[in-house]
Amino acid sequence: MRYFHFCKLPGRVMGIRLLRFTSVVIIVLLLVAGALTALLPNIKDDKMPNLRREPKTQSQSALDSFTLIMQTYNRTDLLLKLLNHYQAIPHLHKVIVVWNNVGEKIPEEMWNSLGPHPVPVVFKVQTVNHMRNRLQNFPELETKDLALHMISKAVLMMDDDTLVSAHDLAFAFSVWQQFPEQIVGFVPRKHISTPSGVYTYGSFELQNPGFGNGDLYSMVLIGAAFFHSGYLEDFQKQPEAVHALIDETQNCDDIAMNFLVAKNTGKSSGVFVKPVDIRNLEKDTNSGYSGMWHRAEHLLQRSYCVNKLVNIYDGMPLKYSNIMISQFGFPNYANHKNKM
Amino acid sequence: MRYFHFCKLPGRVMGIRLLRFTSVVIIVLLLVAGALTALLPNIKDDKMPNLRREPKTQSQSALDSFTLIMQTYNRTDLLLKLLNHYQAIPHLHKVIVVWNNVGEKIPEEMWNSLGPHPVPVVFKVQTVNHMRNRLQNFPELETKDLALHMISKAVLMMDDDTLVSAHDLAFAFSVWQQFPEQIVGFVPRKHISTPSGVYTYGSFELQNPGFGNGDLYSMVLIGAAFFHSGYLEDFQKQPEAVHALIDETQNCDDIAMNFLVAKNTGKSSGVFVKPVDIRNLEKDTNSGYSGMWHRAEHLLQRSYCVNKLVNIYDGMPLKYSNIMISQFGFPNYANHKNKM
Repeated sequence: MRYFHFCKLPGRVMGIRLLRFTSVVIIVLLLVAGALTALLPNIKDDKMPNLRREPKTQSQSALDSFTLIMQTYNRTDLLLKLLNHYQAIPHLHKVIVVWNNVGEKIPEEMWNSLGPHPVPVVFKVQTVNHMRNRLQNFPELETKDLALHMISKAVLMMDDDTLVSAHDLAFAFSVWQQFPEQIVGFVPRKHISTPSGVYTYGSFELQNPGFGNGDLYSMVLIGAAFFHSGYLEDFQKQPEAVHALIDETQNCDDIAMNFLVAKNTGKSSGVFVKPVDIRNLEKDTNSGYSGMWHRAEHLLQRSYCVNKLVNIYDGMPLKYSNIMISQFGFPNYANHKNKM
Repeated sequence: MRYFHFCKLPGRVMGIRLLRFTSVVIIVLLLVAGALTALLPNIKDDKMPNLRREPKTQSQSALDSFTLIMQTYNRTDLLLKLLNHYQAIPHLHKVIVVWNNVGEKIPEEMWNSLGPHPVPVVFKVQTVNHMRNRLQNFPELETKDLALHMISKAVLMMDDDTLVSAHDLAFAFSVWQQFPEQIVGFVPRKHISTPSGVYTYGSFELQNPGFGNGDLYSMVLIGAAFFHSGYLEDFQKQPEAVHALIDETQNCDDIAMNFLVAKNTGKSSGVFVKPVDIRNLEKDTNSGYSGMWHRAEHLLQRSYCVNKLVNIYDGMPLKYSNIMISQFGFPNYANHKNKM
């Protein structure tokens, strides 16, 4: 705004000139406003590849939004079905699809032709079909604020065959905000010590490590969980033996992440949020491909990984927890009414 | 252990003297050990009034044990039934019974005649029958460690008509250890803002303060909850108007404590642990007395208290939460099995 200096003129003349002046200013401002409105960008962006336009949530605090990372192999039909669901989750900032279909074109044209989409989706083409591709510290995760400070954000990592309801995700995200240094997710697992000192990996069928008083978990799987994006950077800095183990087994990246988080925090690596509506869609795929966990050696491999990681890290950092978090009064308040 | 200096003697002589010496030392140690075993204190203590003997848990970290404070009025039959239950809860250090039966003798003789008891129980005779008697900073709460440092401990506060199972209490205590600055308990309540700015107090029947997505609570009642004993000291330091409000209504001490904790932490005052087995025994009493909450004006009084406290503190410090904590896999692992 420019400041105008007014000459000292007699009162009445001054008054009329002021009136004329302010009228002109108002008219000019209205014209400018009209021009700006006409110049607002058109929403349809179908000519822009990859939708790199920043969404309106840029001013949102970095802790208030998350990036979905979904790795996909040989189940593009499930991927697209899930993207239609996940793209609309509250507080989602961006989607990164880790494209493990080496040599196959990403469905970018189709994606764009079916725009607009609520958030940007980036397809990251991979050169090898490796499990740990999804644990790269993707540049797309970094956001800089207006002062050009780097802001880390939450990651939601989902397997490409898992559907979790919007309510579950919104709630679990709010729980992650209260436990930002832990993996907050929907799938708990445990390790068991045996007298021989050899560990075994498993789920609820496995014995309690405690005294018969309920169950315990010591890991939360990252295939349906929130965690701090800084852990991806940490993961890249882990000993080469860890990366080699994951490459050798094409498995256990999630166990390795739990070791990393437990070592980092000295607490249990995960916080389990009990899902109300979680669905495995693998039966619905047309590809016939049904996921790594169906391999005969899958669970034995994971026990193997636990023991290898204990060797690599020279100790067992995982800690047990029996905290199970649910959403108060959801779906209805019957879930907390006292029977007193 | 004394260190013996050995003269430098020729080898063989040295060897025999050493052998004799070590044999003597071993025999002496065995005799001493035998003597100590014989001198171990006898468990039966039925001649000691009030059982002020420190329990074996004195070396236990102060965060690993709690003191039960139970205020009682006109329901001695329930009190005694509950004491038989609560005295055996794991990690209980001591019981303080706040005896509001003014002019009536405490059942000390009967209590002692039915000893021994697992923990010390102290009867604190009150001179007036006041609701906030239970919020005194009782000297019995203080424990000094070997270096004479003051150690604060957890308080479990229970109404004298409420039975909570040992499993629930053991679990909730472990949860309190993870949230030591909050009130961790079994009874959630909420306040609601209305457009007029006047607050209302209530439970799940009251509208959601949110957007229809589940329920919220902003208080955890202290009549069945763990909290840090330091808050009792804090409570005594609150403005006189707070104490006067509780005396005027003979109600709302728990609401006042939630205000205090919320102001202190800037977070939600409570963490709700969903009880598996909680029972109200008030129908079982022979006294015919059925508790303050049956008074017609009880809930209106509590809304009144919320508004008065907002005036006194010049603001509403209570914060909402929707975190509900349950024990993973208890009573059985069906409570967390995925239906995927």
